[in-house]
Amino acid sequence: MSAFAGRLAAAVAARESQVVLGLDPDPARVPGGAAGAREFCRRLIAEAGPACVAVKPQLAYFEALGAEGWAAYEDACRAAADAGLVVIADAKRGDIGQTTRMYADAFLRGPVDAMTVNPMMGGDAVAPFLEAAADRGRGVFVLVRTSNPGAADLEDLELAAGGPWHEALARLVAAWGAPLTGPEGLSSVGAVVGATVPERIARLRALMPDQPFLLPGVGAQGGRPADLGPAFGGRAAGALVAASRSIIFADDPGRAAEALREEVWAVWGASAA
Amino acid sequence: MSAFAGRLAAAVAARESQVVLGLDPDPARVPGGAAGAREFCRRLIAEAGPACVAVKPQLAYFEALGAEGWAAYEDACRAAADAGLVVIADAKRGDIGQTTRMYADAFLRGPVDAMTVNPMMGGDAVAPFLEAAADRGRGVFVLVRTSNPGAADLEDLELAAGGPWHEALARLVAAWGAPLTGPEGLSSVGAVVGATVPERIARLRALMPDQPFLLPGVGAQGGRPADLGPAFGGRAAGALVAASRSIIFADDPGRAAEALREEVWAVWGASAA
Repeated sequence: MSAFAGRLAAAVAARESQVVLGLDPDPARVPGGAAGAREFCRRLIAEAGPACVAVKPQLAYFEALGAEGWAAYEDACRAAADAGLVVIADAKRGDIGQTTRMYADAFLRGPVDAMTVNPMMGGDAVAPFLEAAADRGRGVFVLVRTSNPGAADLEDLELAAGGPWHEALARLVAAWGAPLTGPEGLSSVGAVVGATVPERIARLRALMPDQPFLLPGVGAQGGRPADLGPAFGGRAAGALVAASRSIIFADDPGRAAEALREEVWAVWGASAA
Repeated sequence: MSAFAGRLAAAVAARESQVVLGLDPDPARVPGGAAGAREFCRRLIAEAGPACVAVKPQLAYFEALGAEGWAAYEDACRAAADAGLVVIADAKRGDIGQTTRMYADAFLRGPVDAMTVNPMMGGDAVAPFLEAAADRGRGVFVLVRTSNPGAADLEDLELAAGGPWHEALARLVAAWGAPLTGPEGLSSVGAVVGATVPERIARLRALMPDQPFLLPGVGAQGGRPADLGPAFGGRAAGALVAASRSIIFADDPGRAAEALREEVWAVWGASAA
């Protein structure tokens, strides 16, 4: 097993939280360019971090600020790691093998524990991420069924062999993750699964029993924490709930994060009971 | 029509080239960190640029160098534009709408003319790229069928409605590109189509009559320029041939680029005759 799954499970247990703090320093709401983004992230990590288990910097917001934005991203990762938080780079990268190796070098390093990956290009495009995760004790979260309305356009197309395209993908992710699964039955290869349709979550949990789920879509996109019980699969670290706007632009980010932490932790407890 | 398609067509005609110079400053072969990458790109643009119509910096190689790598990427884009080359950022980005807007801001700006896009997440995830392209006179190239062996894993899955998944995607790309198609019948929404299977190229050209094709896979991956006739669809700018290693690590990059330029230009001429 890559050390990531074990680290994640330990962090969830120690912090009693499955909340992932999405760091999206939207320039429309965060003035001051890269310096403003840096300050914004540090403040959020201080205020909301204690109620969270991880942060998820969204690379787009940093890259829109150019080279200085990259430096702000790296600063946010260091600040989060210093605060004891797991760091998941939301990069959604995917490319041919030798290029994927470079993206693995770009993201699976330093204070970053895991990254999100786009699997469209197939197994050989994802393999270098898996190798880097195994070699470096890190993790990946593979996009499987995203939470946006347009996800149906391609991810839900019905296959001749039966079932939607994203279920064939889910089976691949389970296979890719098998060598990185430890005795606790949690893999260092996770899956991004939208939190908006409860039935789909249960179906994907059955297809990917060992994958930690990273669940976007709670709050603004309509997903309800109360519906997430099946996502855990009997493990506290089986489901991580990502939230960004509902926390980072709240009047009191610490209180918003703590409220979500309590709600999700209670759903996990009820699902395990 | 976004101005990109017109600019691209004019550049192909003026330079009599469909060759896209892939800028992949692989640290295993390009020493000196970000400064070395910057120097490497500037030298290649000077030596091989005259035989090319465009450059395609691959973001992974720059991002592996962190914030300084981003500055080197921006420098390479400026140098290429100053040399009269079209600039295509090979970023393969795709995310939910508001995040996609940030990626559009990150890449479709300054000297960059177009970028590559990953469409897995569907129409609403791609839409902000299309809007930015239309508003700013820029272009996008959407991944449709990539050239790597593993592409078959997901892109080729047979649909219940008939045909492989990537053909349903091709129809979407044609629809997305229609509003950005000019009187010349060339859209500013292009498609990335692997150059390795000639029959597939012809089929995808039929499904996407107006899309400029960006064709990776010639050379190292087995694609042969002689097979690319059907890709052009009767327009000189209908097909762009991307090459990186076979040029940038050649003993004489200028000569390697010129040889490929002549070969592809002759195939285009024969296809139009």
